[in-house]
Amino acid sequence: MTPSATPSPAFEWIDGGGVTTPLGFVAGGVYAGIKTYGEEPRLDLGILGGEGPLTAAGVFTRSAVTGHSVTIGRQLLAQTSTVRGVVVNSGNANTVTGTQGAADCERMATLAAARLGADAPVLVGSTGVIGRMLPMEKVERAIADVTLTRDGGYAFSRAIMTTDTHEKQVAARVEAGGRVYRVGGCAKGSGMIHPNMGTMYAFITTDAPVDAAWLDATWRGIVDRTFNMIDVDMDTSTSDMGLVFASGAAGGDPVAAGHPAAGLLAEAIEAVAQHLAKTVARDGEGATCLIEATATGAADEQDARMAARTVVSSPLMKTAVTGRDPNWGRVMMAAGRSGARVNQDQASVWIGEHCVLDRGQPTTVDLKLVSQAMAQELVSIRVDLGVGEASATAWGCNLTKEYVSINADYTT
Amino acid sequence: MTPSATPSPAFEWIDGGGVTTPLGFVAGGVYAGIKTYGEEPRLDLGILGGEGPLTAAGVFTRSAVTGHSVTIGRQLLAQTSTVRGVVVNSGNANTVTGTQGAADCERMATLAAARLGADAPVLVGSTGVIGRMLPMEKVERAIADVTLTRDGGYAFSRAIMTTDTHEKQVAARVEAGGRVYRVGGCAKGSGMIHPNMGTMYAFITTDAPVDAAWLDATWRGIVDRTFNMIDVDMDTSTSDMGLVFASGAAGGDPVAAGHPAAGLLAEAIEAVAQHLAKTVARDGEGATCLIEATATGAADEQDARMAARTVVSSPLMKTAVTGRDPNWGRVMMAAGRSGARVNQDQASVWIGEHCVLDRGQPTTVDLKLVSQAMAQELVSIRVDLGVGEASATAWGCNLTKEYVSINADYTT
Repeated sequence: MTPSATPSPAFEWIDGGGVTTPLGFVAGGVYAGIKTYGEEPRLDLGILGGEGPLTAAGVFTRSAVTGHSVTIGRQLLAQTSTVRGVVVNSGNANTVTGTQGAADCERMATLAAARLGADAPVLVGSTGVIGRMLPMEKVERAIADVTLTRDGGYAFSRAIMTTDTHEKQVAARVEAGGRVYRVGGCAKGSGMIHPNMGTMYAFITTDAPVDAAWLDATWRGIVDRTFNMIDVDMDTSTSDMGLVFASGAAGGDPVAAGHPAAGLLAEAIEAVAQHLAKTVARDGEGATCLIEATATGAADEQDARMAARTVVSSPLMKTAVTGRDPNWGRVMMAAGRSGARVNQDQASVWIGEHCVLDRGQPTTVDLKLVSQAMAQELVSIRVDLGVGEASATAWGCNLTKEYVSINADYTT
Repeated sequence: MTPSATPSPAFEWIDGGGVTTPLGFVAGGVYAGIKTYGEEPRLDLGILGGEGPLTAAGVFTRSAVTGHSVTIGRQLLAQTSTVRGVVVNSGNANTVTGTQGAADCERMATLAAARLGADAPVLVGSTGVIGRMLPMEKVERAIADVTLTRDGGYAFSRAIMTTDTHEKQVAARVEAGGRVYRVGGCAKGSGMIHPNMGTMYAFITTDAPVDAAWLDATWRGIVDRTFNMIDVDMDTSTSDMGLVFASGAAGGDPVAAGHPAAGLLAEAIEAVAQHLAKTVARDGEGATCLIEATATGAADEQDARMAARTVVSSPLMKTAVTGRDPNWGRVMMAAGRSGARVNQDQASVWIGEHCVLDRGQPTTVDLKLVSQAMAQELVSIRVDLGVGEASATAWGCNLTKEYVSINADYTT
């Protein structure tokens, strides 16, 4: 997916950029033999780390059932914001695997820390099937074998993929406060995507030096507007994880609240995060288009978020888009059940540029035009709830027969 | 679907029974020309009424967007529990149709009341596509044309169908307090089914005389354990409606709290409601089996309900059942995201009779046996949350490619 419009004149997308584009990072990926599916190059274990210690912030799944990597990562970031990187495997989530699974997770962290330099701890990510033991012999050999280089972002972003059809990387540069910073990132996820935290996996890097508290607060806000606003299938993973790492290699004072670069750097991180979030939604299992739903006229932002996200999550809306079926009543159905306050006598709905419901009254728009607006690579839906002034946008994808095929025989 | 075990020795299913099996009811259905799909006999307008005034209780969708029939019905039952019956059309939900839609709904009620005898008001149900005006000329002619008879339950239960593959009727008799009462019912629904009230449409009849307050309280509890525990696709309709009518034609004192027949009559109503709820879930759009999920070991009933319902609602669990894929980790994923408290170190999971997770540790059960347990007409799943003592059961269906086909071209 081509990155969308730039947020400011100081911001520029970097052609072919990725998670190791910012200075001060190394990464790599290998095939350990955990994952039995996926196109070549098929990789399933990766490491992303700093050339020195990194400042990190992270958000994790809010599910009551969490993988060992989430449990351990959350504990670690509660104690320190200085880490050396993250080791990730795909194909096995190491979730509900008991005490042995917890020990396996700790062992991955220890071995990866040794590979990166033992001056700071390493986070772990495990994604894939739930309830199976990790093949630790393969994992250990892979951690020893992985080659870590300054252009290893491609291999790393392949290694974190499960049913993704392509790796998801992007990078940008921003000039702020008289200095150039780079922001990169990669993400994975195409099923079990209804993040409630951070997300499936999103790893963002920057070479800006940052204040840890500023990074944490900034990152949480960005995740709520980007990864927490996408949906593929309503199912929240037990392994969702969104991490941001800052190397400081660009030099200068740490960016904190009040620093002249703080606003533009935060915008750049958000642009990278939003691009990756939309890319994850577009690559939803079996999807053929991206759905962008905006709720306006909401009583408050919470209502707007619920309404927008329910529209992109609704199976009936998602199948209507697959059929280019101008059945816009389903937008109102979804808004109605979302929990948001709706004044249905004042509510309006647009599909693309076509107003189909105008302050509670159906319009006489030609439904063939509405159907054409649903046959686009980007299907835009807007619902005005007719109550207040708040708005929010969410992204999802259509529901096709291929989603069923992909998930009907995932472990067999 | 064959009715399941009887709740008590005093209870008996009536072969071929339905919504007009209880004494004192008439019904009928005709083809008005609103609905353009569905197998023969294709009917789309029906009336169910009493030979005299009926005592009624009802529950309605909790969606913030409601059809005119829901808005008017809720108002009516807040004022009176004495009605004459209900008129229903399928193929058009008369929702977000503005002031004209509200007037059309009132007119349906007035015309149907005239057909039934003008001594009490009539409720209205409209189900189908949202945001289209009702073809009132056809509706008016149909209300005039419908034949109302004591065995009209079959025609009525066909007239309320949308994408249902068959009509859904059942009846039972119960001997209680020295008297015989009959309880019948019909329901419809196979998509947009995640009821949050009562349900899609469920109409229950009994010839017992009842106290209105007892009926209302009893009905609300029953709906929470039956229709509110089924799911087809997470989407809550704007038209959901669950009504119970009592004619009193069996004679005797009104059944109220403390009446010797109260317990057995409530059990009979619940048995009829549970049977219809399971039938609706089994007839979910594109479904090939019924999924029954029970959550045990929950902190409280609310947690148990959330966990059980999330398991049957999860697209990933539903597609796993389609593929007979023993990917039981998805049960834990669903329980984890449900909002229920889970102690994952003490949690257990069974598929059919096979324990796959035993107090936090995966078992070594042969996954081929688990796959076989998923290839049944009734797929049973149990998750013990490892926290407390409460339990609840929910019903759903698998997700197939046919669900996508059915909903990708519903209005076109």
